[in-house]
This record gives sequence, C-alpha cells and structure tokens, in this order.
Amino acid sequence: MKDRMVKLVRKTQDRICKVLREVDGADYREDEWLREEGGGGCSRVFSNGKVFEKAGVNVSVVMGKLSPDAAKSMGGGTELGEKCLDFFAVGLSLVLHPKNPMAPTVHANYRYFERGNESRPGTWWFGGGADLTPSYLFEEDAIHFHQVHKEVCDRHDIADYSKFKQWCDDYFYIRHRDERRGIGGIFFDDLKEENKEECFSFVEDCAESFLPAYMPILEKRMNQSFTPENKIWQEIRRGRYVEFNLVYDRGTTFGLNTNGRIESILMSLPETARWEYCHEPVPGSSEERIVEILKHPKKWV
Amino acid sequence: MKDRMVKLVRKTQDRICKVLREVDGADYREDEWLREEGGGGCSRVFSNGKVFEKAGVNVSVVMGKLSPDAAKSMGGGTELGEKCLDFFAVGLSLVLHPKNPMAPTVHANYRYFERGNESRPGTWWFGGGADLTPSYLFEEDAIHFHQVHKEVCDRHDIADYSKFKQWCDDYFYIRHRDERRGIGGIFFDDLKEENKEECFSFVEDCAESFLPAYMPILEKRMNQSFTPENKIWQEIRRGRYVEFNLVYDRGTTFGLNTNGRIESILMSLPETARWEYCHEPVPGSSEERIVEILKHPKKWV
Repeated sequence: MKDRMVKLVRKTQDRICKVLREVDGADYREDEWLREEGGGGCSRVFSNGKVFEKAGVNVSVVMGKLSPDAAKSMGGGTELGEKCLDFFAVGLSLVLHPKNPMAPTVHANYRYFERGNESRPGTWWFGGGADLTPSYLFEEDAIHFHQVHKEVCDRHDIADYSKFKQWCDDYFYIRHRDERRGIGGIFFDDLKEENKEECFSFVEDCAESFLPAYMPILEKRMNQSFTPENKIWQEIRRGRYVEFNLVYDRGTTFGLNTNGRIESILMSLPETARWEYCHEPVPGSSEERIVEILKHPKKWV
Repeated sequence: MKDRMVKLVRKTQDRICKVLREVDGADYREDEWLREEGGGGCSRVFSNGKVFEKAGVNVSVVMGKLSPDAAKSMGGGTELGEKCLDFFAVGLSLVLHPKNPMAPTVHANYRYFERGNESRPGTWWFGGGADLTPSYLFEEDAIHFHQVHKEVCDRHDIADYSKFKQWCDDYFYIRHRDERRGIGGIFFDDLKEENKEECFSFVEDCAESFLPAYMPILEKRMNQSFTPENKIWQEIRRGRYVEFNLVYDRGTTFGLNTNGRIESILMSLPETARWEYCHEPVPGSSEERIVEILKHPKKWV
C-alpha cells in the first residue's frame, strides 16, 4: 500500500501540474527536499504566470519515529500508545490562489498513514478532502464543486458525503471570527472502515476528481472583470485564510512544531493579505453575502 | 494602585495620540468597548494619514474571574493556585506601522495585574516593554532606541537593562524561522521586586520615555526616499510580524482564546503583508544585513 499511495500522489501531482501549467502559461519551480529524520518531498510552486498569484502542489513521503506527543495528536493508531512509535506518512497537498478575485482559492489533500506493523487493524488510515474559498459567491460554482464530491462519495460505500461535508465545515472554522474559512467541500480523517482496498479506491477517486471539480470554475472566473475594490476584498479574505492556517490548521502547526520544511508548510499562505481595522461589508453587498454563508454554511446539493 | 495605573495609561494614551495626530495629519478612530465579564477599553486607530499605514494605541481595564487555565498561564500570583481566581488587569498596548519602509514598526506595552487581595506579596505585578522592528537597519536608530531604554533602566534600582534586553530578544523569537521579530528593546514581566512604589515609578518612566525613544527615529525616516522593491521587502517583513503575532505572541493567543475584542487584539497586524515562496535576500544587500541581525542579536549600547 505504501508503494501504491506513493505512486498515486506522484501521478496526481504530475497530472494536476500539467494542467495548471497550460492554464497559467508559466512553469512551476520545483524543489526536491530531504528530511533529516527520514524521507522527503517534492514541492512545485507557480508564481509568475497569468492566472495564479501563488499555487503550490506538494508531495511528501516521510517516515521515522514519532514523538509521544505527536503520536497522541494523530487520528489513528492511538491504541498502540507509546509502544511502537514507528510511522510512515505519504500525502499530496495543494493550495491554489488565483489572481482574479472572482476565482476561488482551492485546497486539497490526500494522505495515508501507517504506524508500526500495518497488518494489525487500526495501525493504518487514510485522510483527505478538498474545499473551496471564494471571495465572491457564485452559487453555481459552489453547487458544482459539492456535486462532484458528492458523486465521488456516492460511488463508494465507505464514504458519506453528508458526514464529510459537515466535517469540512467544522474543521475549517475560525473560532475567533465565528466564520468558516470557505464554503467547504469534503474532509475526512482516520478512514479505516472495511477493507483497505475500498479506502484506497475512494481516495484515488477523490484525487482523480480534483481537476473536474475545480477547473471548470477557474476557467469560468479567471478572466472575469473586477474592480480595485474587489481586489482589496480578496486581500482581506486572504487575511482570514492566514489567520486560520497559522492559528488553527493542524497540518501547519504540526509542521512548525516538528521542524518541517518551512517554505513547503507556509506555501499555503497567499502572496498578499490585508488587515483593515474594523472592516465591515456594506449591508446588502456581495461582500456581506459571502460572509453570511461563512457564518451559516449551506447545503449545496 | 489600580486607580493610579488607570490614570497613567489613560494619560499616556492621550499624550502619545496627540503627538501621532500632529505627525500623521489625520485623526484616529476611537472605539470604547465593554467586556461582558467586567471592564472594557478604548482603542484608537490611525489609518488614513500621511505617515502611518496602521497605528493603534489601546487601553484596557478588565476584571473578573480567571479560568484555572488562564491563571496557570499568568506570570504572577501562581502561588494562589485555584483558591482565588479574582483578577484585575490594566494596560496600554500600542503598535505603529509606518508607511515608509525606512521607518521601523514599533510596539510597546505597559501593564499591571492583581490577583485576589493585593495586600499579600506575589498577588500583584507589573510588566511591559518596547521593541523596534525595522525592515532596513540604521545602526544609529537601533542605538538611540536602546540607549533611551538603558537610561530609563539605569535610573531605577529594580530595573536591569541587560536582563530586560535579553528577555526581549528571547521573547520575540520566531522559532520556525530562527530569527527575532525585530531588533529588540526591553521586555519585563512579573515585576514585583522591592516595593510597589518603585515598580510603579519604573513603569511610569518607561511610559514617559516612549516618545523620546521612537519619535526622533520616525521623524528622520518617514520622508526618506525608497523604491518599490523596498516596499515589497517591508511587506515580506510584515508577513513575519504576522507569523510571530498569530503563532507565538502570548497576548494575542490569550485574547483569541478568551473571547477578547477581536479588532483590538488583531489591531497589531499590519495593513498589508506578503509571503513569496522561498524568498532569499541578495547576498551582501541591506535586506540580508537586517536578517543577519535578527538571527544574531547585537549589543547596541
């Protein structure tokens, strides 16, 4: 399974980067990195093209010994306690921040973990998901993104769209703002239901569905006209993105606390962000409308 | 002492704001706010003037019952344990982000706490400090800022400039970057040495020294010429300011976790910040020089 997941995330990285390169008109910068304690990764970042302000697609394959604290904070394998701290983790993580404020930011992640001897139940698990963060709401985009992910879930007995949608809304919650980072999608962790083959097949299907879920939205919005005020609102929303990632995101805080490669961890941050004191959207505006949805998530499909 | 500290921070807020208004050419926005659990504050923020991108000077006077967790995380009064959770806190906190990248950001804070009956030793304490965050280093500015604060410390037997300078360098450390937020100044907490009168007198002297420490630097730099590249570097440095404040700053994380007034807590964030993937200063450049100092703090006086 380790090998199959490594192959899957590498193939997915290649496939997604090929499409992004075509649309962006510029190539990515690639950094291969090694982790002193075992394993490494490959980061690919777009930042000079037509479409993306900053867009990163990272793969990492790491292994070694967990600290007891790290072991406690993980989704699965907790029944092993501190008896066996060997681990293996492989994942693909991407964050795409388009320039055009009408085009939403998107994040996706597909990952597989093992602890100790993976032949015992509860010592392996999958996680993943994808979520959309628009600055301006286009209902048809939200419906399309959720619809594609609902269809993926519906194809697999072990996946439950309603549960994974709720999990996504709960996870990307900025408590001090009482709002979500975006309009959601799906999020799942600790997936070890039934047999491993079915889990892998679901995660593979998720990874293959990323482009059909996002690209039609990007292509519709990336050349839409916008005002300087729209751009400022996008930067304010990017400030909230930074707040979530630095204060709450488990992947980011885990990375910062465990001596990960800083540039790969913080690749998720937008190129620019803005904090205006006491900024309030105009009542009845489209800026107010998206905030309303972030405070009260909606059923899209 | 409560009344005297409240008077001191209010008078200091007025005096500093008067000077900032003159230099900025625009008035502040004032928000008086009440805290449901007891007390409140007054935030004054400049954001439309000639000199400051964003500058806030906040006073807060809050009281009530601490949560056991909050009590544990405080500097003083720990010997009370959970027996008495009544508290009183008064403080002034300011962060000034000038527009000109040659003019440094400055932060200062002066505060007084009580727990339970303040007649017992260890149930009251003072804290405070001031620190400078330049994007470009001018040694004479660093020396002036430290010199003024050294002179304040030298006037008071209970204050130790070397210790408070080191404390500042240690506190404003961005671990994941292995660099400090700025070039320091002084920082002190849990000040309950000797008698209360001497502590108050030192904190009062610090508060009165803020303008002479900072204003000559601001006035020298605020109209200095700069390039668009200088401005981009300033925004990158502001990204690091955001990283420190959201990931490590105890005041910020305490505020976010205890339902404080979000706009007053996050007033410390700059108006704009930037994250470029793998940005590296050019060897031998002035950008590299400031990073070198942030990695290896210097004795300025």
